[in-house]
Amino acid sequence: MYDKTISSAVIKRLPRYYRYLGELLENDVVRISSKELSEKMNVTASQIRQDLNNFGGFGQQGYGYNVEYLYTEIGKILGLDKKYNVIIIGAGNLGQALANYTDFERRGFYICGIFDVNPRLIGISIRGIEIRLIDELEEFMKTNTVNIAALTIPKAKAPQVAADLVSLGIHAIWNFAPTDLNLPKDVMVENVHLAESLMRLSYNLKAAEESGESI
Amino acid sequence: MYDKTISSAVIKRLPRYYRYLGELLENDVVRISSKELSEKMNVTASQIRQDLNNFGGFGQQGYGYNVEYLYTEIGKILGLDKKYNVIIIGAGNLGQALANYTDFERRGFYICGIFDVNPRLIGISIRGIEIRLIDELEEFMKTNTVNIAALTIPKAKAPQVAADLVSLGIHAIWNFAPTDLNLPKDVMVENVHLAESLMRLSYNLKAAEESGESI
Repeated sequence: MYDKTISSAVIKRLPRYYRYLGELLENDVVRISSKELSEKMNVTASQIRQDLNNFGGFGQQGYGYNVEYLYTEIGKILGLDKKYNVIIIGAGNLGQALANYTDFERRGFYICGIFDVNPRLIGISIRGIEIRLIDELEEFMKTNTVNIAALTIPKAKAPQVAADLVSLGIHAIWNFAPTDLNLPKDVMVENVHLAESLMRLSYNLKAAEESGESI
Repeated sequence: MYDKTISSAVIKRLPRYYRYLGELLENDVVRISSKELSEKMNVTASQIRQDLNNFGGFGQQGYGYNVEYLYTEIGKILGLDKKYNVIIIGAGNLGQALANYTDFERRGFYICGIFDVNPRLIGISIRGIEIRLIDELEEFMKTNTVNIAALTIPKAKAPQVAADLVSLGIHAIWNFAPTDLNLPKDVMVENVHLAESLMRLSYNLKAAEESGESI
């Protein structure tokens, strides 16, 4: 359908286009020029055209973009025309925060199970989903289709748990543990490394202070 | 000290170097070649050399890198030789998860205040830090040095709260609200957009399935 060798920089920007187009749609905007979209998103119009040309364009000279069409098409590119069943491994604050986040469901990501090693958490329900003991995971995987596992467990346990998940058939891991998981190539891993994000902020704060932009 | 026009791709990789070097240090590794480091980190040795050359090198021909020295120097580049006082705005699950995360403290980021609009949360303590009513923020800012504000509040409220924080003197915002904040240029914003991260995962899952890498 489209070139598979899309650069990771473009892939990083696509969800942001999707979010903006979704907001425009909510505000009943029917069409938008790349210039208007670029002003809203704070990227250049040529960047937008270039990014979208990777997938065949979508724009019409003199008309701009049809918001709903572009939103739907980018959604398809992102795989959002499907439903994903997600399990959360680790029912601490972060795991519970993810389970409570209704935004994911709107995009087709359904939390179908939450697991923890802590027996004290077992039986607690989050939006109707009961926290289960991790020992039940194998049985759960036999009777449920699970597409994505979110890992919100300590760093030391993450590599082993990730390997176990892969052996149970998981092909996509959303990893919040502050470590890299070395998994087979056919397993997709998306890392959210919070400490690294915070360090980029301190880097930028320091760089701004040194260049005198900030006090 | 070093060129300020470091590309954002390099800045994105620096915290990862820092994390790996910290792990080596914990395991009493004294020195490492760029080849060994590259195998551990799954990037090319030339990429590592190129990245570090942005800051003047640090390596010695035939010796490699001194782990502790490199760790310390990258820490300085990232601004981790300072302490940062952090407040969290929004004491829901995510805000509480951040407050509970002791890893940040090890890197010099100290949570000094947590604020919420919900009176039912007021008085609850997280690691000794009491949740306060957001109305107390202005007074708090007068009597405390705050370097960074983490925003773990709903999207609809984030732009106004961010603007208020800036007017109270905040120059760095760690934004978890799924929206872009349009703030003055001297305010550093680091976004953690979880839904976008999840969409990159579904994109990669779909791309892998289409290319036949995965079942």
